[in-house]
Amino acid sequence: MVKRYLELISLEEALTLLTTSFAIPQRTEKVPVMQSAGRVVAEPVFAKYSVPEVNLSAMDGIAVRSRDTLGAGDRNPVTLDHFARVNTGNIVPPEFDAVIMIEDVWEAGDCFQVRRAAAPWQHVRPAGEDIKENRLVLPRGHLIRPFDIGALATYGITAIEVRAVNVGIIPTGSELVPLGVRPGPGQVVESNTIMAQIFLDQMGAHCTRLPIVQDDPDLIRAALRLAAKENDLVIISAGSSAGTRDFTESVIRSLGRLIFHGVAVRPGKPVMLGDVEGRPVLGLPGYPLAAQTALREFAGPLLESWVFPPAPRCPVAARLAQPLVSDPGFDEFVPVFVGRIGQDLIATPHIKKAGVQMATVKANGYTRIPAPVEGYEAGTELEVLLTTDPGSIERMLILTGSLDPSLEELAGIAHDEGLFLHATNPGNTAGLLALRSHTCHAAPLSLPARSMLGQYQPFIKFLEAGDLAFIHIATVELGIASYEGLGIRDLTSARFINTRRESPARVVLDSLLAAEGIDPSSINGYLQEVHGAPAVAAAIRNGFADTGMCTSSIARAAGLQFVPVASEDYELTVCREMLEDSRIRTLVALIKSPAYRAILARLGGYDTSLTGMIRGLNGENTLIPFSPGSLPAGYL
Amino acid sequence: MVKRYLELISLEEALTLLTTSFAIPQRTEKVPVMQSAGRVVAEPVFAKYSVPEVNLSAMDGIAVRSRDTLGAGDRNPVTLDHFARVNTGNIVPPEFDAVIMIEDVWEAGDCFQVRRAAAPWQHVRPAGEDIKENRLVLPRGHLIRPFDIGALATYGITAIEVRAVNVGIIPTGSELVPLGVRPGPGQVVESNTIMAQIFLDQMGAHCTRLPIVQDDPDLIRAALRLAAKENDLVIISAGSSAGTRDFTESVIRSLGRLIFHGVAVRPGKPVMLGDVEGRPVLGLPGYPLAAQTALREFAGPLLESWVFPPAPRCPVAARLAQPLVSDPGFDEFVPVFVGRIGQDLIATPHIKKAGVQMATVKANGYTRIPAPVEGYEAGTELEVLLTTDPGSIERMLILTGSLDPSLEELAGIAHDEGLFLHATNPGNTAGLLALRSHTCHAAPLSLPARSMLGQYQPFIKFLEAGDLAFIHIATVELGIASYEGLGIRDLTSARFINTRRESPARVVLDSLLAAEGIDPSSINGYLQEVHGAPAVAAAIRNGFADTGMCTSSIARAAGLQFVPVASEDYELTVCREMLEDSRIRTLVALIKSPAYRAILARLGGYDTSLTGMIRGLNGENTLIPFSPGSLPAGYL
Repeated sequence: MVKRYLELISLEEALTLLTTSFAIPQRTEKVPVMQSAGRVVAEPVFAKYSVPEVNLSAMDGIAVRSRDTLGAGDRNPVTLDHFARVNTGNIVPPEFDAVIMIEDVWEAGDCFQVRRAAAPWQHVRPAGEDIKENRLVLPRGHLIRPFDIGALATYGITAIEVRAVNVGIIPTGSELVPLGVRPGPGQVVESNTIMAQIFLDQMGAHCTRLPIVQDDPDLIRAALRLAAKENDLVIISAGSSAGTRDFTESVIRSLGRLIFHGVAVRPGKPVMLGDVEGRPVLGLPGYPLAAQTALREFAGPLLESWVFPPAPRCPVAARLAQPLVSDPGFDEFVPVFVGRIGQDLIATPHIKKAGVQMATVKANGYTRIPAPVEGYEAGTELEVLLTTDPGSIERMLILTGSLDPSLEELAGIAHDEGLFLHATNPGNTAGLLALRSHTCHAAPLSLPARSMLGQYQPFIKFLEAGDLAFIHIATVELGIASYEGLGIRDLTSARFINTRRESPARVVLDSLLAAEGIDPSSINGYLQEVHGAPAVAAAIRNGFADTGMCTSSIARAAGLQFVPVASEDYELTVCREMLEDSRIRTLVALIKSPAYRAILARLGGYDTSLTGMIRGLNGENTLIPFSPGSLPAGYL
Repeated sequence: MVKRYLELISLEEALTLLTTSFAIPQRTEKVPVMQSAGRVVAEPVFAKYSVPEVNLSAMDGIAVRSRDTLGAGDRNPVTLDHFARVNTGNIVPPEFDAVIMIEDVWEAGDCFQVRRAAAPWQHVRPAGEDIKENRLVLPRGHLIRPFDIGALATYGITAIEVRAVNVGIIPTGSELVPLGVRPGPGQVVESNTIMAQIFLDQMGAHCTRLPIVQDDPDLIRAALRLAAKENDLVIISAGSSAGTRDFTESVIRSLGRLIFHGVAVRPGKPVMLGDVEGRPVLGLPGYPLAAQTALREFAGPLLESWVFPPAPRCPVAARLAQPLVSDPGFDEFVPVFVGRIGQDLIATPHIKKAGVQMATVKANGYTRIPAPVEGYEAGTELEVLLTTDPGSIERMLILTGSLDPSLEELAGIAHDEGLFLHATNPGNTAGLLALRSHTCHAAPLSLPARSMLGQYQPFIKFLEAGDLAFIHIATVELGIASYEGLGIRDLTSARFINTRRESPARVVLDSLLAAEGIDPSSINGYLQEVHGAPAVAAAIRNGFADTGMCTSSIARAAGLQFVPVASEDYELTVCREMLEDSRIRTLVALIKSPAYRAILARLGGYDTSLTGMIRGLNGENTLIPFSPGSLPAGYL
């Protein structure tokens, strides 16, 4: 048995080793204040002089001797001939001890009258009010924020000694090409060290990214030896698994000490830490999401322990839209998408595949499932760390159901209105369940066209019909896709790929087969089910099947022939009260817009004659238009 | 009456005018992906090719034909002679449809044995799994985060069209000097436009800051005319009040239209908005904190409405440490300091003076008091927007009570241990009350030395004595400060400045006067009270009084003569259970350290013979050392 075990340690143990095995580097650099935002103070900063240095007026008005105003009142105006006209920020001359606001004085020739006595020192900013000469402005360890820099400038500080750290980053892998080079088959653009550089840059590190090193232990060793000399931290990307070309561990051992290799964390298990000449060497796993974990959960905390500020992060409490399973024994980090539905934040987890970078791109946060936990029920409240501004959540709509290219186009024009659609494709049933559990704003559903809706009743029954509104996006052609232009009667003579039992295409197929008198068991592949129309088209393109049912736009996009046999209603389905939501209003307005119809016409395969119509279900579960009075104001 | 009213509009009205009066500028620019973090996508970004482009191995192992493994089992190993050795990420050659992990195969000469059948497509990353060619990666309006850039690189994208905006910033004011020039009396370093530039830069704006313009309407007009031509937004700093040299409003009127001048917001009331050639012109108030409000609450939302990302902000719920009053009718923004005490976040508001930039520097967040609210009781839960990482809150200790230079030195060495002390100086009584309400971690108290503690009992009675622990910082000399070296018998012949009735210095004074047979009413200024020893020293320095009671270190720091007459115990007072807190442990260790004693010796005026001793109160309210067994482990 060919086996190389990784000795896994816990995330907690790993973090303790990481943050206690090395001395804090004492590197600092002097930067101009204008470039100091986001940096951390290395030497305490003191005010160069008092601010203000002399007594200043805090108002527009006149500077006076308060004793001259004694006894002034509405019936006893006092005329002052000794005063100085001052604006806010002007010096209050030493002979005066108060300022009277310009609104409270009356001109009287060259003099001013006042009708209230001035208290000593009223509206005067005493010298040193803000800060006194040589007093502490920023302590060591203070993270410099934009408005701090205003204060620093005011106090005469032009440059600051800040903490600095040099990070050497070594990309390794013979399959890698640099950014800007088109990868050949089996090659991939080296992106992990790009992420490392940008991630660490924003923490205030100075990164040097080396050229790509081939999978050759001698070359890797030479690069590591050099990088460890010149940097406070070295990051080696990949080569950390147990494959025949994974040399990182042996190279670290040959130059220094391996501290750990393998942590009970997902993604990111093969992460490793070594010590070369007293400098930490962090080995990143190769899968992009695993590398992200290693950067965020290892490199980040190491720099934080060196008093560098973390990337912006904002914890929020969100309720899980669906169950989330986890490997017990592993701390697991899961990208999630958070949206607000009513008062609740709802977190939809992303698929967990370490190679799928789009999972992070589409997510706006992540959650950590601690090692002892096996998973969470839907509805559990979790802490999510947002990766975007929390305010942006209010512009997000969660759509759960069946995706169609028409929805992607709708998302495109919605973005232009500042509205972000986060659509997932678990199918009609899951969409209806999400509506019922209030874990989505709207469910895009592919419903069998009118004549067959009766056979689709079970799904509608997931909800009380009266609560739903169906916003018609388009009527979509449904038909047989193939390279040869096969029709319904040709299915028995070709390898077929089917859709799931609950899909409208399947309902339509079964109904057509019955009408044609074709026995499903005579179709080669009838029992082979894939999820959704795009998967049908992909199966035909990839040669797994010759034919299947899908929509015309998907068949055409895949370069397949298409024989129409029926149609389906593509409906954006919402709980009735959601029609009041301003974002849904915006979306309906977009669906109704001529621009959107034009886009659908260009795509082809869409009948837009009912587009934008809002319907409900009658007692027989048939879609019928709402009476105008039963819709919220603003809907026709 | 000389009066120029500002017509105030509400913040909400102002924001509506701000965000609806101007067309969104359509400026974009192309940036390399490496420089795109924090920018917003202007044109949708599509994948240049599928990722992966071909089927890849998801594991280290061997690629096989799944059908060759049919029937394999522990008792029926199958030997494979047709396979390919693959590492993670390698191409799975087209003739194979599955990968078996290296851990699950046994070498058998040139062949491999397997003991389990492989499912078709197991451990294979199908072509296009991550993304397919030409599919959307980032929609318009997407904020680019560091890890997004990894995906962009992987998908072959090297440059991105992002939203851009040009902002022209005009500093005006004859009293201003530029950063780097030492201001003379009445002059001030121009810092508002520095804040503007750094604040807007981090939102992705491109700022051009003009040289300082004198208070001359013709010069300001010329600068504004030029800036409005070249920029999408113009910011004019100051000149927005009602003083004789405030020209911003008239200049805007002469070149275009004034939209509003004066908003019911504090600080920041004189903020103004104009329209010059269709471009918004935002007038900032001159006071730094007012300018901050205008930048954060006006310039920020305007750019946000133009789809620029806001500065990082994280809302948290915190409980007010003390009552907070507010002007009804004004939306008020108050800098606060947030710390965690037990499970609660506690927010301590800062003094509200628009000229005191240190208030923002010392705060780690701010709260908004809506216009209808007159104020909040202590303990009210408020939303605070943090201006630092939420994780940093755990490193903050809130100290409330009486400040002494010895505490500032302690804070200095604590920073070096990653522990931040946020100390405020409301006095002993407020410190004791804060301890009782659990709104501070510790109360630094100046207690009259042993012989006089009896007279100080009322304060101690705020708390149940058994719950407190007093960590001795130092014994501090207390005496008479003056320029002439006056003593207690000289007080009747000089102008005196007193401390508040509840201060230990006052207790000591009254006791000494009684002992000397001096009638307090014979002392000129006995009834004139200021708050704290530094204020006494300042009053003498500023010539308001000739003499007063304070500590020797403060008197010496102010350059005054000092005649010692008594001493006080400076005690860091905590609720007993707080001794378990690791941060308090760190602080006690620092107090006990030789380094800290050395610092106190250098300052002078401190007796450190008891420094670090932890005491409690006995039945007679006298400080007595705890028995070793009654302290948590680790304390002696």
